[in-house]
Amino acid sequence: MAQRQPHTVLLTGFDPFGDDTINPSWEAVSQLHGETIAGRCIVSEQLPTTFAGAPRALRAALRRHAPELVLCVGQAGGRAALSLERVAINVNDARILDNAGAQPVDTPVVARGPAAYFTSLPIKAMHADLHAAGIPAEISQTAGTFVCNQVFYVLMHALAGTRVRGGFLHIPYLPQQVATMPGTPSLDLDTVVAGLRISIDTALRTRRDLRIGAGATH
Amino acid sequence: MAQRQPHTVLLTGFDPFGDDTINPSWEAVSQLHGETIAGRCIVSEQLPTTFAGAPRALRAALRRHAPELVLCVGQAGGRAALSLERVAINVNDARILDNAGAQPVDTPVVARGPAAYFTSLPIKAMHADLHAAGIPAEISQTAGTFVCNQVFYVLMHALAGTRVRGGFLHIPYLPQQVATMPGTPSLDLDTVVAGLRISIDTALRTRRDLRIGAGATH
Amino acid sequence: MAQRQPHTVLLTGFDPFGDDTINPSWEAVSQLHGETIAGRCIVSEQLPTTFAGAPRALRAALRRHAPELVLCVGQAGGRAALSLERVAINVNDARILDNAGAQPVDTPVVARGPAAYFTSLPIKAMHADLHAAGIPAEISQTAGTFVCNQVFYVLMHALAGTRVRGGFLHIPYLPQQVATMPGTPSLDLDTVVAGLRISIDTALRTRRDLRIGAGATH
Amino acid sequence: MAQRQPHTVLLTGFDPFGDDTINPSWEAVSQLHGETIAGRCIVSEQLPTTFAGAPRALRAALRRHAPELVLCVGQAGGRAALSLERVAINVNDARILDNAGAQPVDTPVVARGPAAYFTSLPIKAMHADLHAAGIPAEISQTAGTFVCNQVFYVLMHALAGTRVRGGFLHIPYLPQQVATMPGTPSLDLDTVVAGLRISIDTALRTRRDLRIGAGATH
Repeated sequence: MAQRQPHTVLLTGFDPFGDDTINPSWEAVSQLHGETIAGRCIVSEQLPTTFAGAPRALRAALRRHAPELVLCVGQAGGRAALSLERVAINVNDARILDNAGAQPVDTPVVARGPAAYFTSLPIKAMHADLHAAGIPAEISQTAGTFVCNQVFYVLMHALAGTRVRGGFLHIPYLPQQVATMPGTPSLDLDTVVAGLRISIDTALRTRRDLRIGAGATH
Repeated sequence: MAQRQPHTVLLTGFDPFGDDTINPSWEAVSQLHGETIAGRCIVSEQLPTTFAGAPRALRAALRRHAPELVLCVGQAGGRAALSLERVAINVNDARILDNAGAQPVDTPVVARGPAAYFTSLPIKAMHADLHAAGIPAEISQTAGTFVCNQVFYVLMHALAGTRVRGGFLHIPYLPQQVATMPGTPSLDLDTVVAGLRISIDTALRTRRDLRIGAGATH
Repeated sequence: MAQRQPHTVLLTGFDPFGDDTINPSWEAVSQLHGETIAGRCIVSEQLPTTFAGAPRALRAALRRHAPELVLCVGQAGGRAALSLERVAINVNDARILDNAGAQPVDTPVVARGPAAYFTSLPIKAMHADLHAAGIPAEISQTAGTFVCNQVFYVLMHALAGTRVRGGFLHIPYLPQQVATMPGTPSLDLDTVVAGLRISIDTALRTRRDLRIGAGATH
Repeated sequence: MAQRQPHTVLLTGFDPFGDDTINPSWEAVSQLHGETIAGRCIVSEQLPTTFAGAPRALRAALRRHAPELVLCVGQAGGRAALSLERVAINVNDARILDNAGAQPVDTPVVARGPAAYFTSLPIKAMHADLHAAGIPAEISQTAGTFVCNQVFYVLMHALAGTRVRGGFLHIPYLPQQVATMPGTPSLDLDTVVAGLRISIDTALRTRRDLRIGAGATH
């Protein structure tokens, strides 16, 4: 008799971009590959930091794993905390070249797609649980206009109308990336990985998000 | 015989909020009231910093003046440059009380409205012209989740489907507001007013925005 | 019969350095040249931004004008307020080349000079009067280790044992310098010049400084 | 036959101050108590965060341990890297109350002491070795005007004229201290402790400091 597939959580991270030789997002999510959290199996996939390749790789991973929940993770150099992203917007505006040398300016992520998608993860509950565990965390109102935002938008567009939930989390530099950049915040890998575990666990257990103010005046 | 109304540009600013006794947005836009820019007459209106009152006051001003173009201006304490806002999102999430004591958390600005609206102003051309004039300016990917974002969203919702263009501009503190707050940037009123004049002039003269990269990696 | 010389206040500013084409310190102090403040005549002199030339030029100006009070002014790109410097230290450590291509590392400003000199200006009273006038101001515990600190140290070394008082003030970028540098604070020239007038007036009128806490925890 | 005492390195950290319940400086140095680094025994002592008590406790520890080298460590909330302090200045100026409720303003640390003391540790070599190990580190030109600077000054005053070397290191908040303070940098305890080991090892092995530029323009 056929056995039911265990439910799967898909985590994604990026390859290094620009001058960096590592990408903390991949360092972190690859550590969780194969773990079980709240009874679900974690699978981690790497996405290329390219406007052309990342959406393709994400859609392939969604087909391959048919996940119950998806958390895409990216590096936000300069931020000091885990950033739970609230909204993905339908625009690419690249200040720098991506890893394939592309630099789209003011193009839509998805032609004729809606202007934005909100996350379907319970980010306020995740925020509260991260704080309770002593892990620096914040709600962010923008995921930028580079490949991270594109992946977040593509994810939410793909999940729209399904029961699969998804969202995006930005993480700071690792300490070794900022060793010679005084003033630039970092967070060590153990703290990031612990934060990802809590985020996933809370997301899986929470159906109705909390209503706790965590907005920005501007 | 009836004379045609001169075309009008509507500027809005806010009353002071929180502990502040002035609001630089009103100080700036009120200086431009009655001026003519690129052949249009500027009218300036003050909006209350309240979730209940601001949309009502904005809609009344739109009816009263039937403007050709609208620029709403608000204070973004802590920013160092004129911030041309790219997108308004359909959520209120107040970290602090508004001037009426209200503090909505994760409510929509407009029930069943789209997740976001993009500005219809040529913000890249405005950005370029501000830089050419030596005025600190940036493109911003978030107007926050307080009354400023709400007004921006309500504006774009009201203008949707019309030929009237509109957008939102955040401005820094004035120097006197930060006299005792070391490290907090400010911009003097003359520079802000000069920047508003350029912004309006460029917006009126530019039908098709420039494509110049000014995005954010995150 | 010989008439007594009016008492003189010496102001100094620097020529532009690095990639900058103007130096706000010279823009500001040159505006005050020839003014009378509290009955004293202001003379402004430009110093070169070089480790070799600045001390020479400063000493020559001291001889030429025999001032009653000296305020040296320099640019502190990235600061948001007028910075009243508390202390000059006896070390040069240049992270970048000066305008003559020199880059001393860990050399003394004055061989066998004391480790540091405190300002002899009443910086707490100046601080209070700037705040009362609504001008952003702070007490700073370090003038760096470049030409500004060198000039400050050379000044205090020259004045040691005399009744002439002196000190150093750092000022932010001008708005036009940061037009394309989002996030970097600036202060307009009128505010800086107004702040210099108040600083000089207070320094001349105050013999015994106020005791108001304005230190740093680190 | 008498055995020679093993040489000792004295580390100090502070008790928590203000609203904090832990002080990362004590968390870090207490972990190293009893370790051997480069053949020397590490002893760690806690100092109270009070202007009255800290000098007394430091002097007692110096007498008790007769160390070969001393490194005092303190928290610098808001900094992102290990800060190797270059200079201690002879002034107390407390912006906040110390743990005993005292708040000296513009008093000398040591009456008739010199204006400042430079560290006698090879901070450039330590800086280079920390960077080589991937640990965020910077040279700092000011230790503030609170108890940390006072302890640093008292230390250098006590060591003046002896062959014992000493200095001060500021460390960031721990992640759990900034969990709810978005934007505020932190560094985890393991990274700090690893950085302290390297700092001590390099200090013990380096007699003549490197000459590598690491100054500040202001």
